[in-house]
Amino acid sequence: MTQSRYFTISEYPEGLPERSLFQLETQELPELKEGEVRIRNQWLSVDPYMRGRMSGVKTYVEPFELNKPLQGGALGKIIESRHQTLKEGDRVVHMGGWRDVAQLSGDQVQPLPDIDVPPQAFLGVLGMPGMTAWVGLTLVAELKSSDTVLISAASGAVGSLAAQLASQKGCTVIGSAGSQEKREWLEAHGIKAIDHHQSADEIKKALKEAAPQGIDVYYENVGGPMLEAALDVMNDFGRIAVCGMISRYNEAAPSAGPANISAVLTKRLRMQGFIVYEWIKGHEQAFYQQVGPLVADGRIEYRETMEEGLERTPDAFLALFEGSNQGKMLVKLD
Amino acid sequence: MTQSRYFTISEYPEGLPERSLFQLETQELPELKEGEVRIRNQWLSVDPYMRGRMSGVKTYVEPFELNKPLQGGALGKIIESRHQTLKEGDRVVHMGGWRDVAQLSGDQVQPLPDIDVPPQAFLGVLGMPGMTAWVGLTLVAELKSSDTVLISAASGAVGSLAAQLASQKGCTVIGSAGSQEKREWLEAHGIKAIDHHQSADEIKKALKEAAPQGIDVYYENVGGPMLEAALDVMNDFGRIAVCGMISRYNEAAPSAGPANISAVLTKRLRMQGFIVYEWIKGHEQAFYQQVGPLVADGRIEYRETMEEGLERTPDAFLALFEGSNQGKMLVKLD
Repeated sequence: MTQSRYFTISEYPEGLPERSLFQLETQELPELKEGEVRIRNQWLSVDPYMRGRMSGVKTYVEPFELNKPLQGGALGKIIESRHQTLKEGDRVVHMGGWRDVAQLSGDQVQPLPDIDVPPQAFLGVLGMPGMTAWVGLTLVAELKSSDTVLISAASGAVGSLAAQLASQKGCTVIGSAGSQEKREWLEAHGIKAIDHHQSADEIKKALKEAAPQGIDVYYENVGGPMLEAALDVMNDFGRIAVCGMISRYNEAAPSAGPANISAVLTKRLRMQGFIVYEWIKGHEQAFYQQVGPLVADGRIEYRETMEEGLERTPDAFLALFEGSNQGKMLVKLD
Repeated sequence: MTQSRYFTISEYPEGLPERSLFQLETQELPELKEGEVRIRNQWLSVDPYMRGRMSGVKTYVEPFELNKPLQGGALGKIIESRHQTLKEGDRVVHMGGWRDVAQLSGDQVQPLPDIDVPPQAFLGVLGMPGMTAWVGLTLVAELKSSDTVLISAASGAVGSLAAQLASQKGCTVIGSAGSQEKREWLEAHGIKAIDHHQSADEIKKALKEAAPQGIDVYYENVGGPMLEAALDVMNDFGRIAVCGMISRYNEAAPSAGPANISAVLTKRLRMQGFIVYEWIKGHEQAFYQQVGPLVADGRIEYRETMEEGLERTPDAFLALFEGSNQGKMLVKLD
């Protein structure tokens, strides 16, 4: 018999979750059914959107079920297979994270594409976060090389790739980040950096200095005062791809929206929310072909912040809201 | 010599303009230049967007010039022509409103299309307001017959046509209006009516009763609490075509935006501001072909509220913000 250790929550939290919310459980896995595979996870992904699944209400994904294994992106090695094409030893990515051993139907896992990068890149720069950056810029915002682009949380897993993809395309790029160290990383990569932990008026002033020509595309990860400031400096016909609003995920009660929302009308803006799964279908190959070589030969740099051991998974997740991660936050299992 | 009487403003007002802002002036018109026409106006249009041109800052149109003739849609008869194809007696629509006699270059006027309706319809249902309704639904929101549609200010010049166009297409239509009489008109035309002069929470409740299935397309004319309520009841992948936000036009200082703006993300909404002139080009014939017959044979009803005499033009304009007009607000000249 194989055991699986996994995290659960037994209630939906309000505000920023506490560490004690997460309980580590153990179960004996049932025998594999026809078509299933058993996977020993090597890397787990934790991502801000998971906070939405802890709210108990359906947002764009179903809420996590209480007292059931939490879910999330993961990468592991197949240790047993009753699937026709997936074999023992194959490395796969899948959504059976927050646990050490996952047991899934073979159609819920994807073998790794043949690109010469460390495997955990398929949870980050060449995985969901990378696809999210690419989809938002390319398909949602319809980025052109002449655009001036603003990316909030530009040193995060999604933002840091979006910023570099836009730079590679020839765009002028401004990135926001909440710490001096992150802004230095951005500046070192040719990206003008501003601080988004300020009032809307202070951010507006910083944006006007960084981009006197105005912003054509805003890749939105933050919300709150940052969105209000961005609306103020958008150019006519600007596009806002709304990928996230992390400043609001832990709010118990909603705060006021942008007072200048009528800029959508006066500047004829297009503001569109998206999630990667609904856009990437049919574009996976284009994504791997465009972004894969940039990552493999180092033209796009990606960073990882890593916790070690399954027990540290909740800590890694909570660190996302302290802003202490650089790039993709991962958990490495033994 | 021919005189022109016209309205000017000598300062940019804050808040709701007062009647005394508008001054009636007289000038002798210079001789016609080659290519110009002189037009005796018969109908003038007043529209909410004109308030934006009185702000002194460039929004999506240039501000009115102080102490110069105000501008706006108008319909008149050519009384003198030095243009190759436009002849004395031709009826034309143009932007030389707020005056009795206009003198314009021939390329700034459009002859009336050959559709059997009263001429002033080309300032309303078959003019800019009608095109605005059609463009917003058809091109911006990409309306489908299966959609449930919410239209705010649905008894106004634009809204009443948008509501009827959506009904004609087979959509379920909910309209908001600020008075009992307007809501009765909507109900009499098969459109569920709600009151938008309520708090966001009250509007939400009314919307949930009127459209338990949710809203797919919101045609936005109002802003404020109405937008917040609409965001709450939008379905996933909903489209919001932002045509106007009349509740905000006379605000001296901006008020808070919708607290639930993150619905754009969670519901993957597309919210887009538009103005008709930037979209209608190349679609004029499609508009006349689709909407013309519906108007000519009475399947689409349009209403006019009329003031008489040039002197009443400012009163007609200001009445727009009291909400006292039914359908298109016009001024009839002698």
